[in-house]
Amino acid sequence: MADEPYDLWYWPEIPGRGEFVRLALEAGGIAYRDRAREEGSEALVKDMRARLGERPFAPPYLLIGDHCLAQTANILLYLGDHHGVGLSRPYPRCFAHQLQLTIADIVAEAHNVHHPVAMSAYYHDQKAEAARAAKSFRAERMPKFLGYFEAVLSDRGPWLAGERWSYVDLSLFQLIEGLRYAFPRRMKALAPTLPLSLALRDRVAKLPELADYLSSERRIPFNQDGIFRHYPELDGEK
Amino acid sequence: MADEPYDLWYWPEIPGRGEFVRLALEAGGIAYRDRAREEGSEALVKDMRARLGERPFAPPYLLIGDHCLAQTANILLYLGDHHGVGLSRPYPRCFAHQLQLTIADIVAEAHNVHHPVAMSAYYHDQKAEAARAAKSFRAERMPKFLGYFEAVLSDRGPWLAGERWSYVDLSLFQLIEGLRYAFPRRMKALAPTLPLSLALRDRVAKLPELADYLSSERRIPFNQDGIFRHYPELDGEK
Repeated sequence: MADEPYDLWYWPEIPGRGEFVRLALEAGGIAYRDRAREEGSEALVKDMRARLGERPFAPPYLLIGDHCLAQTANILLYLGDHHGVGLSRPYPRCFAHQLQLTIADIVAEAHNVHHPVAMSAYYHDQKAEAARAAKSFRAERMPKFLGYFEAVLSDRGPWLAGERWSYVDLSLFQLIEGLRYAFPRRMKALAPTLPLSLALRDRVAKLPELADYLSSERRIPFNQDGIFRHYPELDGEK
Repeated sequence: MADEPYDLWYWPEIPGRGEFVRLALEAGGIAYRDRAREEGSEALVKDMRARLGERPFAPPYLLIGDHCLAQTANILLYLGDHHGVGLSRPYPRCFAHQLQLTIADIVAEAHNVHHPVAMSAYYHDQKAEAARAAKSFRAERMPKFLGYFEAVLSDRGPWLAGERWSYVDLSLFQLIEGLRYAFPRRMKALAPTLPLSLALRDRVAKLPELADYLSSERRIPFNQDGIFRHYPELDGEK
């Protein structure tokens, strides 16, 4: 089973939550097939609906032999345990997972900014609400979350949870990239307060293990269908 | 260390996310001290600010000897591994955690209903936005999430992840209780579609392991400061 590539299923058009898993697979040199990028969204929906027993609530999910594993942080915990992209000693392992779940929280809030009142409705049908949500996200939530990761790096750096990079460092990189795409003015204003996080972002961007991937077509650019979206009217220095 | 009670820190006035941890501690017969209920919110804030290294982003957190463990689902995973309130075989264990993270997702969305545009502002300052968010949550998100857990029980019941109750069953109980408090009319309308989930809720409510706790003052009632809040104008049959 270890020799068989894993099957990853995620929406093929956006980086989204799937990208946190892809970064760990790629940096860990773990063989996988990105099934919906080969076969399309309809194949994903069909596959997901056919899964019983360990059914996923939503993509991404990873197939491990006969088993189906969903929830991004849960998949990363598994990959960390089995492929050296996580931590092995018990409490750094728990702490890395704790940080990953905190990244999941800000990712959900970042999505909420452009869809504060109805996930199923279009952005242009909730622009007024989104403007209020963005103001609060920029002024309060971004400094709170990013300041937290900066403080963790101040405690324990240069990596978040161990003596070398782990999946959670890759995820902080992806979070910063997403926030820079969506809120470039705000991220520029916050940059002086985030020296350790931005240095970590730069180190991940230069990891030899990721060089091929980041310059390949496998890396999906951020876009206006994803979790992180750039609407200039939702960005601002404050 | 196993003989020492754990220290749990969570806001003392609300059930909130802390209650998911409390239910597992209580049903598992695991000794703990509920520090902020003994010492107050200010003691919690002071303790949290003093923690470095494995610092929590937010309560609840559990102290395990010298270690600090945060994020509700992460704490439950730990308690499951060490105290028999979870699953021991690998994939039911992963699946239970996956379900717990999905419960965490709907809990965050339930909070978002009454605070869709600013977590830091009062509900009465975002009532119009909350009305839209509630409509979408009731019509789309509640059936989607609750229908998912119902389908899992249809696949694998009568318990969500194993042959006896585990922490994730206690959490589904708490989720249903919270939704019934916040959205009684909507939950009544959905009841015919959720026979297996509601039967699970009733079995958990009658677990001998929880009898003392649920009738004690340690069990904090839902209230208007928590995650699940009852605003009649946000409820409805549809």
